Amino acid sequence: MNQNNYVVIMAGGIGSRFWPFSRVKHPKQFHDVLGQGRTMLQQTSLRFEGVCPNENIFVVTNKDYVGLVKEQLPFLYDDQILSEPIGRNTAPCVAYAAYKIRQKNPHAIIIVAPSDHVIFYEDQFREQIRIALDEAGRDNIMITMGIKPSSPDTGYGYIQYHEDHNSKIQKVKTFTEKPVFELAQKFIESGDFVWNAGIFIFGVQTIISAFEQFLPEVAETFEESKSMLWTSEENNFIQRAYSQCKNISIDYGIMEKASNVFVLLSDFGWSDLGTWKSLYDILPKNSNGNVVQGNVLTYNTTNCIIKTSGDKMVVINGLDNFIVAEHDNVIMICRKDEEQKVKDFVADVKNKDSRFI
Amino acid sequence: MNQNNYVVIMAGGIGSRFWPFSRVKHPKQFHDVLGQGRTMLQQTSLRFEGVCPNENIFVVTNKDYVGLVKEQLPFLYDDQILSEPIGRNTAPCVAYAAYKIRQKNPHAIIIVAPSDHVIFYEDQFREQIRIALDEAGRDNIMITMGIKPSSPDTGYGYIQYHEDHNSKIQKVKTFTEKPVFELAQKFIESGDFVWNAGIFIFGVQTIISAFEQFLPEVAETFEESKSMLWTSEENNFIQRAYSQCKNISIDYGIMEKASNVFVLLSDFGWSDLGTWKSLYDILPKNSNGNVVQGNVLTYNTTNCIIKTSGDKMVVINGLDNFIVAEHDNVIMICRKDEEQKVKDFVADVKNKDSRFI
Repeated sequence: MNQNNYVVIMAGGIGSRFWPFSRVKHPKQFHDVLGQGRTMLQQTSLRFEGVCPNENIFVVTNKDYVGLVKEQLPFLYDDQILSEPIGRNTAPCVAYAAYKIRQKNPHAIIIVAPSDHVIFYEDQFREQIRIALDEAGRDNIMITMGIKPSSPDTGYGYIQYHEDHNSKIQKVKTFTEKPVFELAQKFIESGDFVWNAGIFIFGVQTIISAFEQFLPEVAETFEESKSMLWTSEENNFIQRAYSQCKNISIDYGIMEKASNVFVLLSDFGWSDLGTWKSLYDILPKNSNGNVVQGNVLTYNTTNCIIKTSGDKMVVINGLDNFIVAEHDNVIMICRKDEEQKVKDFVADVKNKDSRFI
Repeated sequence: MNQNNYVVIMAGGIGSRFWPFSRVKHPKQFHDVLGQGRTMLQQTSLRFEGVCPNENIFVVTNKDYVGLVKEQLPFLYDDQILSEPIGRNTAPCVAYAAYKIRQKNPHAIIIVAPSDHVIFYEDQFREQIRIALDEAGRDNIMITMGIKPSSPDTGYGYIQYHEDHNSKIQKVKTFTEKPVFELAQKFIESGDFVWNAGIFIFGVQTIISAFEQFLPEVAETFEESKSMLWTSEENNFIQRAYSQCKNISIDYGIMEKASNVFVLLSDFGWSDLGTWKSLYDILPKNSNGNVVQGNVLTYNTTNCIIKTSGDKMVVINGLDNFIVAEHDNVIMICRKDEEQKVKDFVADVKNKDSRFI
């Protein structure tokens, strides 16, 4: 196992499209969404077993979730949990981790991975991660994992690439975040687009150079960090740094602008599990087309996803194509094809009674 | 206030058509179903204020609900709560109360009333109850309250009567329990049918004579009770008596057979509140035709009844004509026009996990 391999798990999101299951106090990544006996964060960490040593795993999360991370990954030392005072999207998060890791190991190759995605074929995933680590270790490049799209989903980012059969990785041409449906259809037809899985691999010096070039204000902020990271000053420094950083994604801030970005065409049964419908799509259905988790009786009910906690009983008669979700004193009943409204529900509930968000 | 006036409130039912709100451990009559600040039992008791003295109120209930009755009607002495070891329908319940009351007051006029019905116009109700008490005090007759039917409801019993404009009460011709729809329609068209409100008024000697004539085995059983009622032997006696009594309603066992039954045509805003739809029908609706009780947000949702406890949040998008009921760890979602299935749900849930019934 290469001691230069590092993983940065991003675990600060709220996952509000998965409300009411994903909640401000206990977001999706801290749940065992698939019922596999492990939370999504635990599964994500486990996925890198054999890829990088446990002491090279870093988790970036909101300060409010540090306790949950410690509880779920008890092998982490406090220094491996990077506490964000506020959410500032992925660019400041990656910067924080990169500057911190560089100080310890300037030869680090970093995998940045979300904590709340599903990967079904872990062996293939590890195989492809190793290819990416090799390539990123050899050259001053940034690699992203691209998933062959199965539908013109408008919830994903798309990556267009220059095909090169002689290379393991393909040069990226364009990034397009969440296209409209017609555009997504054209992307699929053209054949040279893949979904952006949000997993990045780069040398620590490469990503810091990219910050210096494309997000110089972020780089300047973190340049001052040297004397404070890994000391008792770190928290105070980060508090100040985050208040100066703008809210920007690593995709938009760097990947879309840099010319040294490559995509590794991947196939490891991936889902970002972004929405209720995506959970419905990946889980096994019964003969009525229902996905059922919990104590549930259905009558004349088809094509639904019904998820409830074990101490509740749910009885449904006469629903087709609905999400029925019960969690922590909230019940949501929503047409499955209108699941994009969930974020509106969350906004409205927040106004009414913030205990329920 | 006539000291001979007595009321017997029947509070032993389970109200399973109102599941999951009405539960084996806490049936409908012990809930504040309408949100009026009083349970249905309390409201029923209050309804007889000024009609009969508090010490003449008797409540017959299952032994498991004695605690709930004491809690909700703290003015009752233990002797006023008649504890049934098992439910045996209304005939044994009325016999128990009648024999017990006769021993104290052989001139008693008894009103028998369910504990879980709604009466909107309490003043009219009291006025009509007084007429019935007068008539039943004068003659050896049994009186039932008849409600002008507003629809061919197949969930009610129907009473046909001989019209007599010179009398305050009308002689009963036939009783028909829960007719099929076509028959119910004919009843309505004919104009000489009313709904049986299940409220009876009779002298204690009159009802005991009726038992002797039409249910002699019940009369014989209770004839032996004299030395035991109002003593410490009462409970043991009742235990034995109920094990000997068959399960039979006062309607079927006596009223349908006796020739001295009269109906008082009544109009006091009555509902037996037997089902979710009946609750929907009587409660005020918002501009989308929804009846909403609890913390609820609706989107594109119409003609529903949504009832949940205060500490829960319910969000619904895209339902029309449904019952959504949440209570004590159970959630039921059912098409409103298929509410008759609720009893099937209860049977199925009982097989699965009896905590939830």
